[in-house]
Amino acid sequence: MNNNDPDGIYYLGPVGSFSNEVADIFQGEKIPKKSITEVFNSINENSIGVVPIENSIEGPVHETLDNLFKNENIYVNYEIEKEIKLVLAVNPSVNSVDEIEVIYSHPHAINEARESLSKLNLTNFVPVESTSTAALYASRQKYSAALCSEYAAKLYGLKILYRDISDSINITRFIVISRKMTLDGNKTMIMFTIPHKPGSLYKVLEKFYRNNINLTMIYSRPLKSIPWQYYFYLEFEGSLKDENVKQALEEVRNEVNILRIKGSFSKLQYQALSFQG
Amino acid sequence: MNNNDPDGIYYLGPVGSFSNEVADIFQGEKIPKKSITEVFNSINENSIGVVPIENSIEGPVHETLDNLFKNENIYVNYEIEKEIKLVLAVNPSVNSVDEIEVIYSHPHAINEARESLSKLNLTNFVPVESTSTAALYASRQKYSAALCSEYAAKLYGLKILYRDISDSINITRFIVISRKMTLDGNKTMIMFTIPHKPGSLYKVLEKFYRNNINLTMIYSRPLKSIPWQYYFYLEFEGSLKDENVKQALEEVRNEVNILRIKGSFSKLQYQALSFQG
Repeated sequence: MNNNDPDGIYYLGPVGSFSNEVADIFQGEKIPKKSITEVFNSINENSIGVVPIENSIEGPVHETLDNLFKNENIYVNYEIEKEIKLVLAVNPSVNSVDEIEVIYSHPHAINEARESLSKLNLTNFVPVESTSTAALYASRQKYSAALCSEYAAKLYGLKILYRDISDSINITRFIVISRKMTLDGNKTMIMFTIPHKPGSLYKVLEKFYRNNINLTMIYSRPLKSIPWQYYFYLEFEGSLKDENVKQALEEVRNEVNILRIKGSFSKLQYQALSFQG
Repeated sequence: MNNNDPDGIYYLGPVGSFSNEVADIFQGEKIPKKSITEVFNSINENSIGVVPIENSIEGPVHETLDNLFKNENIYVNYEIEKEIKLVLAVNPSVNSVDEIEVIYSHPHAINEARESLSKLNLTNFVPVESTSTAALYASRQKYSAALCSEYAAKLYGLKILYRDISDSINITRFIVISRKMTLDGNKTMIMFTIPHKPGSLYKVLEKFYRNNINLTMIYSRPLKSIPWQYYFYLEFEGSLKDENVKQALEEVRNEVNILRIKGSFSKLQYQALSFQG
């Protein structure tokens, strides 16, 4: 896929991560970064980034939301959904599930498979920074296991004991970010803070309702600088070119303190594009 | 503090955790559990549980919210805020900061002190499942350190090199849960799902606004069973005995699908109570 020939496609690494699999649908140099924050910090005028934003089981990815809020000049251009299939993969020393002493994984992945694994009497989790790092650790330590992608398990020479170990259907939504705001698409994202007085949030939502705009997601995050104060993250149907969206945002400006418009975007199909990868 | 002599006080362990420190304000047998889910599952008619629900930097604790939603018969009786002060504590073999080879801690805690520690040239972190486990590991391994509470550092005989190493103010809100719904207090918690149609959330918030009720927190979480469908978690000022709260909830019932009322509760002061512990 050609995205105006981006000058570098930064993704949440390491090599073999789910973000890497998604980044592979774009043509150009792929550069893994150690954290979501580093992906955001790497993006210059002509590069793009690929990071996870939401998981259907675990919810939003906080580091992505916080960076979207903090980095005023980074916008969302596309969203891509990908089904995440986790496997339980073990160091070659392990012959049966009861020999597993420790399971490495990313905290999100652990939560996504906690029930299935507890039925196997597996509860000794050690959180690490990514599922592919988990696979790396499991490859180095006897009697250890990783909850990771099949891709990462194979990359690090692990044995796959169980496939499809997630508790329920597990889809992750990734976003493609850049320094260019896009106005076309079927969804729009904004972030805002509201005055600390009764009815503030209600009055913001009212503007969308009165303008016939359907919200698809709302989420609150701590501002950090002041305990128990929040910013809000909102996605809704329609594009910044639509008259009712323009009207609603004009009205919303009067009800909020900070308003960050992150752009309109459309969905890219993961499957279809992967053939070109 | 006497809470009707609970038959067991379950808390998110291990011994020495921040939940342990909060649980110590109650009289009775304290029983550590390996996970928040296990705390919820342990609570019988006469016992109580102590778990974290929200952190001023990291946001809500998802495992707690999901268990509150899932366990219809478990209610919130109190909230307790505690400032989380992290210390850098070392194995007795360490005499100065440059002798530290590795620092154990929970990934959340690492994120909360990363900047302060990098100024001391300390970047070799190993994530483990809790800050108290980190202290345990540091007690067993020469030239290692833990980023943990002062309580855990003392429990495992570590030397404290630096106090107050967090990057910013870090307060965690804990809740006391039981099988008894309480109607008194200055805050009330509900959880609900809404019909999948435009304006659903707006109409719920409208009922609170029209009844002069101030929301203190709103949060959405994925339903997991159906991708991209959510339940909402709401806290507001007032108690279930207040006429306007009764009225608002009566009106809200017409706008929601599932409605779970988790009770009214008041805030216990951590400092004052700790003298009785």
